[in-house]
Amino acid sequence: MEKINIEEKILSKNIKKADALRELFKEKGVFVLNLVSSPGSGKTSILESTLTGLKDKYNIGVIEGDLQTDNDAKRIRKLGIKAHQINTGGACHLEASGIEKSLEQFDLDNMDLLIIENVGNLVCPSSFDLGEDCKVVVISTTEGDDKPAKYPSMIRVSSALIINKTDLLEHVDFNTEECIKYAKGIQPDLKIFQTSCKTGEGIKHWSSWLAEAIESKRKS
Amino acid sequence: MEKINIEEKILSKNIKKADALRELFKEKGVFVLNLVSSPGSGKTSILESTLTGLKDKYNIGVIEGDLQTDNDAKRIRKLGIKAHQINTGGACHLEASGIEKSLEQFDLDNMDLLIIENVGNLVCPSSFDLGEDCKVVVISTTEGDDKPAKYPSMIRVSSALIINKTDLLEHVDFNTEECIKYAKGIQPDLKIFQTSCKTGEGIKHWSSWLAEAIESKRKS
Repeated sequence: MEKINIEEKILSKNIKKADALRELFKEKGVFVLNLVSSPGSGKTSILESTLTGLKDKYNIGVIEGDLQTDNDAKRIRKLGIKAHQINTGGACHLEASGIEKSLEQFDLDNMDLLIIENVGNLVCPSSFDLGEDCKVVVISTTEGDDKPAKYPSMIRVSSALIINKTDLLEHVDFNTEECIKYAKGIQPDLKIFQTSCKTGEGIKHWSSWLAEAIESKRKS
Repeated sequence: MEKINIEEKILSKNIKKADALRELFKEKGVFVLNLVSSPGSGKTSILESTLTGLKDKYNIGVIEGDLQTDNDAKRIRKLGIKAHQINTGGACHLEASGIEKSLEQFDLDNMDLLIIENVGNLVCPSSFDLGEDCKVVVISTTEGDDKPAKYPSMIRVSSALIINKTDLLEHVDFNTEECIKYAKGIQPDLKIFQTSCKTGEGIKHWSSWLAEAIESKRKS
């Protein structure tokens, strides 16, 4: 019981901070996306493909979360986009307090889109609200079509699922329909995208959805 | 500080239980492997390939850890091997107390090898000792060669690294030498295996290593 109480305390402290961040993002008209997945599902590659198409139209910032290395922030900076790397050390997820601190690096008054690429982990980041407008979860075709069933908590809190690495479909045992069925069984409103960063499949469709969300936040 | 103290308390309670399990496994001469990886790296497929070759020679039991579903236990049972599924609900790793409870399902007096397939998570299971003889970490070629650098804590506690899905090497950007270099930089004694459950590459080599470990535990 002690463990559960402490966990609740940590989560409730995080929610308060996340709510304050959400207010701030609303005031500034910044759309905030929390991108989550297993390690190696292709989150950074998706960002590279997506942001290349959006960076001339919108002011974008990226926060990268990893236990170690600033590999991902470096990749984003190569696109000419501001990226801040959080190294969690041993921690398995990002928390709202870390995001709050990172915001010192950005000019929110001149920002349309903030993307938070979470630590690669299909479990823990589902419990930590970062003040985002939505979570988007990436599952790659090499991970198996039963992943939504095995990791339902992440599907439950996500607004969209990107099934990535469709270029590898012919080489792996992955039934896309089954994957979508599992996911929609948990979250019927889940928006589904199918992408490949190698062939470019689906990137425009996904980018349009993101652009609409940015526009909608700007107007509100 | 409170959070850290409570974490330490949980970990120290877990270590005590894990030490007791280790004593029990030693007394019974059971070699215990804790298999860890990201979701979808192919842990269950590796077990299917490996145990098919070992099941006639050794008495084997498998504990499967997942948030939800008993898909993996069902796959193992199809081989005629006893498997017990632990569903953690929301929890991101297995703990020694859960293993202790699962052992009621097995006859340790007539067992040579117990494999614990942990929850798919490249972070949290690194902190939880389950009384095992060793942790073996699986990274698949689709996850990117920098994973050891990004998730060093798991490499640090592992005795062996299995680089899986080598059949996909020609379709992905994965530099095997780089991956091994990163991993050995963290844990110089790490034993490396390269496997494909599709072509069978490396399965014999890995199985021989496991068989030697079982024999060595029996004799000790």
